[in-house]
Amino acid sequence: MKLYSYFRSSAAYRVRIALNLKGLAYETVPVHLLKDGGQQLSDSYRSLNPTALVPTLVDGDLAVGQSMAILEYLEETHPAPALLPADAKGRARVRAIAQTIACDIHPLNNLRVLKYLKHEMGVGEEAKNEWYRHWIAQGLSALEAMLAASPETGRYCHGDQPTFADLCLVPQLFNARRFGCDESAYPTIVRIDAECAGLAAFQQAAPANQPDSE
Amino acid sequence: MKLYSYFRSSAAYRVRIALNLKGLAYETVPVHLLKDGGQQLSDSYRSLNPTALVPTLVDGDLAVGQSMAILEYLEETHPAPALLPADAKGRARVRAIAQTIACDIHPLNNLRVLKYLKHEMGVGEEAKNEWYRHWIAQGLSALEAMLAASPETGRYCHGDQPTFADLCLVPQLFNARRFGCDESAYPTIVRIDAECAGLAAFQQAAPANQPDSE
Repeated sequence: MKLYSYFRSSAAYRVRIALNLKGLAYETVPVHLLKDGGQQLSDSYRSLNPTALVPTLVDGDLAVGQSMAILEYLEETHPAPALLPADAKGRARVRAIAQTIACDIHPLNNLRVLKYLKHEMGVGEEAKNEWYRHWIAQGLSALEAMLAASPETGRYCHGDQPTFADLCLVPQLFNARRFGCDESAYPTIVRIDAECAGLAAFQQAAPANQPDSE
Repeated sequence: MKLYSYFRSSAAYRVRIALNLKGLAYETVPVHLLKDGGQQLSDSYRSLNPTALVPTLVDGDLAVGQSMAILEYLEETHPAPALLPADAKGRARVRAIAQTIACDIHPLNNLRVLKYLKHEMGVGEEAKNEWYRHWIAQGLSALEAMLAASPETGRYCHGDQPTFADLCLVPQLFNARRFGCDESAYPTIVRIDAECAGLAAFQQAAPANQPDSE
């Protein structure tokens, strides 16, 4: 398998963790989101993934974008170790936590959106950072409430094994820290992040440990 | 089952189509996103769904938010008729199309974001509409490329049966039309939308046919 990836992309980071947890070998194909005006915008990359976003997973004749679709594909084709719980209600909870990050937080804060705010709308640096921190705070507050209140929360977001939820949470918290967000209001999230940081699969997927890291 | 819904919410609209296609009876609990300062922000709704977003599906003791997590839950618990293809590669394609809408288009254009642009950032009406149309055009262009180029596209986004992809596409196109977006560049999308419009499950899920429609 090949993963078209950018070291700092939190969507690519999610997939890297999944590949590592499942012990799947893959080749990283770096796509630099800033160099050459954004390599993801090239015709060659668009022919692989018309959304011009990373990541893209290539497995034989399949090229699939969208990190959550990739996670589901990996879970179906390489079920062990499972990254979703065995019961439908547990899976619903895990996917809802994951999608809260993938749909409600990350899309508002990714590079193309921050660039649009700055270049097309003329938003200043401070207002742009306010925007970033606003959506982080909204999203992480909701997640903290979901995690802190539930008996299903264990060492990780759901029980004592990592799931899709943790694969989304760790990259999001990494990004929040880069932007200097205050994390003191999210003790459960910070605790789970620290648990994940102890696992080699998460460590090896971190931006600093990628071939294209800077 | 109960669905906490708002007639114009495209995330709720996706779930309504799925419930109808699967022939599942449900009770609509309207959550008005504008009245009372936004009923989704009330303590009682937050205690059900801490993200303060619609929809929420309640099934017995399960309360689950996030439309894509709800669709997966319904597919697992009520598999017929299937709304995902039988093969893993087909499912990956369908989920990628659905997530392109759920992660790349809709989150940028939903009500809370448009409100933030207006009230917190002081963005004028025209720049706000430009923002809306920009992300619609980016997303629908990518989808059109994905759909037009693939032999997997049939009457619907994937083959000749509706899937998650169509459930996301129709509400998104409904919203785009509300905002006066030009759809002439997306002939495949417009054709598929028209196919879906012929099905009772889609018609009955439309905003105009909801108990809380205005």
